[in-house]
Amino acid sequence: MGFDIEKASRAELRDIQDQRLEESVTAVYENVDLYRKRLDEAGLSPSTIDTTALTAVPFTTSADIRDEYPDGLFTVPTGDIQRVHTSSGTTGKPKIFGYTRDDLDTWSKIIARSLETSGFESQYTVLNPCKYGLVSGGLGWHDGLEQLGATVVPSATADMDRQIELIRDLTVDGLICFPSFALDLAGIIERQGGDPTELSISTITVGGEPTSQELRAEIAEAFDAVVTEHYGLSELFGAGIFTECEECQDGAHVWEDHFYPEIIDPRTDERVDDGEEGELVLTSLSKEAMPLLRYRTGDIATMTTDECACGRTHARISVTERMRNGISIDDTTVYPTEIESTFLTEPETAPYYRIDLQRTGQHDAINITIERKQGLDVDQSELADRLHERFLAELSLSVDEITIATPGTIDRTLGTKANRVYDNRE
Amino acid sequence: MGFDIEKASRAELRDIQDQRLEESVTAVYENVDLYRKRLDEAGLSPSTIDTTALTAVPFTTSADIRDEYPDGLFTVPTGDIQRVHTSSGTTGKPKIFGYTRDDLDTWSKIIARSLETSGFESQYTVLNPCKYGLVSGGLGWHDGLEQLGATVVPSATADMDRQIELIRDLTVDGLICFPSFALDLAGIIERQGGDPTELSISTITVGGEPTSQELRAEIAEAFDAVVTEHYGLSELFGAGIFTECEECQDGAHVWEDHFYPEIIDPRTDERVDDGEEGELVLTSLSKEAMPLLRYRTGDIATMTTDECACGRTHARISVTERMRNGISIDDTTVYPTEIESTFLTEPETAPYYRIDLQRTGQHDAINITIERKQGLDVDQSELADRLHERFLAELSLSVDEITIATPGTIDRTLGTKANRVYDNRE
Repeated sequence: MGFDIEKASRAELRDIQDQRLEESVTAVYENVDLYRKRLDEAGLSPSTIDTTALTAVPFTTSADIRDEYPDGLFTVPTGDIQRVHTSSGTTGKPKIFGYTRDDLDTWSKIIARSLETSGFESQYTVLNPCKYGLVSGGLGWHDGLEQLGATVVPSATADMDRQIELIRDLTVDGLICFPSFALDLAGIIERQGGDPTELSISTITVGGEPTSQELRAEIAEAFDAVVTEHYGLSELFGAGIFTECEECQDGAHVWEDHFYPEIIDPRTDERVDDGEEGELVLTSLSKEAMPLLRYRTGDIATMTTDECACGRTHARISVTERMRNGISIDDTTVYPTEIESTFLTEPETAPYYRIDLQRTGQHDAINITIERKQGLDVDQSELADRLHERFLAELSLSVDEITIATPGTIDRTLGTKANRVYDNRE
Repeated sequence: MGFDIEKASRAELRDIQDQRLEESVTAVYENVDLYRKRLDEAGLSPSTIDTTALTAVPFTTSADIRDEYPDGLFTVPTGDIQRVHTSSGTTGKPKIFGYTRDDLDTWSKIIARSLETSGFESQYTVLNPCKYGLVSGGLGWHDGLEQLGATVVPSATADMDRQIELIRDLTVDGLICFPSFALDLAGIIERQGGDPTELSISTITVGGEPTSQELRAEIAEAFDAVVTEHYGLSELFGAGIFTECEECQDGAHVWEDHFYPEIIDPRTDERVDDGEEGELVLTSLSKEAMPLLRYRTGDIATMTTDECACGRTHARISVTERMRNGISIDDTTVYPTEIESTFLTEPETAPYYRIDLQRTGQHDAINITIERKQGLDVDQSELADRLHERFLAELSLSVDEITIATPGTIDRTLGTKANRVYDNRE
């Protein structure tokens, strides 16, 4: 399924993109006031836009979606909407996203393609502990797994003991989860005296929060499994829309027949070159109910259009962080994944940590607590000294205090996004 | 969709049942050790069983499903299982139920038929606050609503304020929920100074816990909506498999092309006549992965095969209680729905109550606390006296103490099954 398109030439992909872009732009021009107004103001019309001319189109932002709440960006009447999802919306109105029947079919096929790409097979039994509800994660994966033909275990509502019991009793092959869920699962099994590598799980895909390659390697080792990362965004369908391939695990293939990706410099708004870091901007090419043009994701990424060793031609994107996760310390900005990536190359550290920020006078203090690995004889002060030096040399980050903690003392998140940063500054 | 079969003659239905029963019995005879052994012992073979000879087949019980955990009752290989659901399993291993792709399609069509029967329409926007996960409720309704073509709002994970906001902002037409959820929703809106009858909700179906007709009438009045009851059981697909019709609301139509219903006397195991109360026993006729023969539901019901005024010919079942909800007081057994049904015919009482049981010496004491209605001038001791007399006359129940409580003082359940009975006896 879908393998031909995954290896289409870049020129063939460009043709598909230009054609679908024109359809999307026509749909929003005819049905969405906001887009008609903006395109008119920019002197653009559906027939004049192709992927090279896309740079003239104004960005769509998160604020635009909030302003058009609930259905100002829909291109179809409510009766044609088959489902809505929302953002998590912890404060104020959540963003609302609409899907037609065709959108749900397209999305489930995209996810099934991603699942196959990252090594899942139709005869697998797969545990899906992602929450099913307003947020797109659980249902998105569920529909994609059904499309793939796998046996789905919708374990969202179960506690950890039940999850472990289901993995054992149903001989689960695959797992889709937050990286912290995989870590918690391995940790609990080990504390129960078990060995996660002896479980039947062979294939794991993690997402929902950015992780370093080092953290994914930790999970792979814990389960003796293939671990890939996926990326999704409810503004453009939702969970699992691009994915690392099982073979190379070197950037997530963005399915370019459905999405047009750009990386821009967030200060100049100009496109940057392949391999350079910037903000990920996405245009939907096949979304029916709510197509978005040049949506600023707020995620920091690099992109390459080099053909992957797996033979797939679709560009690969490495999302390194969320811009909003950036920690400003005095004059520098540092990201949790950079910190994680640094200390996880030390053999004595476990992937559990917290970052505490405090204001002391004119100075921002940053304290990092990292668990040491179970069962190793660690010289704690020597390890802390070494990490002080590495953070300074590699990240230009002067850490005020590094604490090496006893295994198991950092809070586990048990099925939700991990909280790494505790900012106690005013 | 499905309307012809809903009005098929009883003879046509019987033909379909006999044919599908033979297919189901053949499948379990060939693939399930437990059934082959039992049928052999009873001297029965797939070709000798039709719906009239079904009485010779031994019952399947809840214990059988637990004993065959996880997949001893499956008729197909694991690779053909598309999904599993489980019982809530608060203690010990939950029961596991398997579904093939065809089972999920059949189930979603049955639910869509039920939804249409109870007044839901394809252009509706429907709030589905049922939990999605291992228990079959949320996903079952979700798939049925998509099959119907309605817009689904999968609000399971939202708190009550967000549920209310979604109902208002998305102009929700229909609601599927526990009866207690509907009551809580109305109560919160009223306490916020709103009026639930002014919401756009026109159609509600409740289930998951047995309710009296009086309670459903309270909900209908609170929302100025059509309120029907549905019934489902994960052992036979799951949520929403039979339903009251919008027109008559007089017993739930059991879709006899998919299920063969019997009502038995739980002491003699013999079938009882139409209209007589007994235990509901169900045989699946179209379940592929895990067909069950004569499954004892543990629910108390009456059945009529009289044609309904709506024109549907499928039998109607009124489930009045779960046998395990029966309260044994000294020598009598009384059910919460009987208590509810009695006091709700009083104009001064609200549908919020709790039953407390205590052992005092040789006697079981039963105390009932009932909220009075908001805004009414109630003579509490006079109302309590009247209820004492009515419980004694109508239910032969001598209540030790009846407390008329202030509105809002009985615990609300907010989205889970209501807990009515607090048994403090040893």
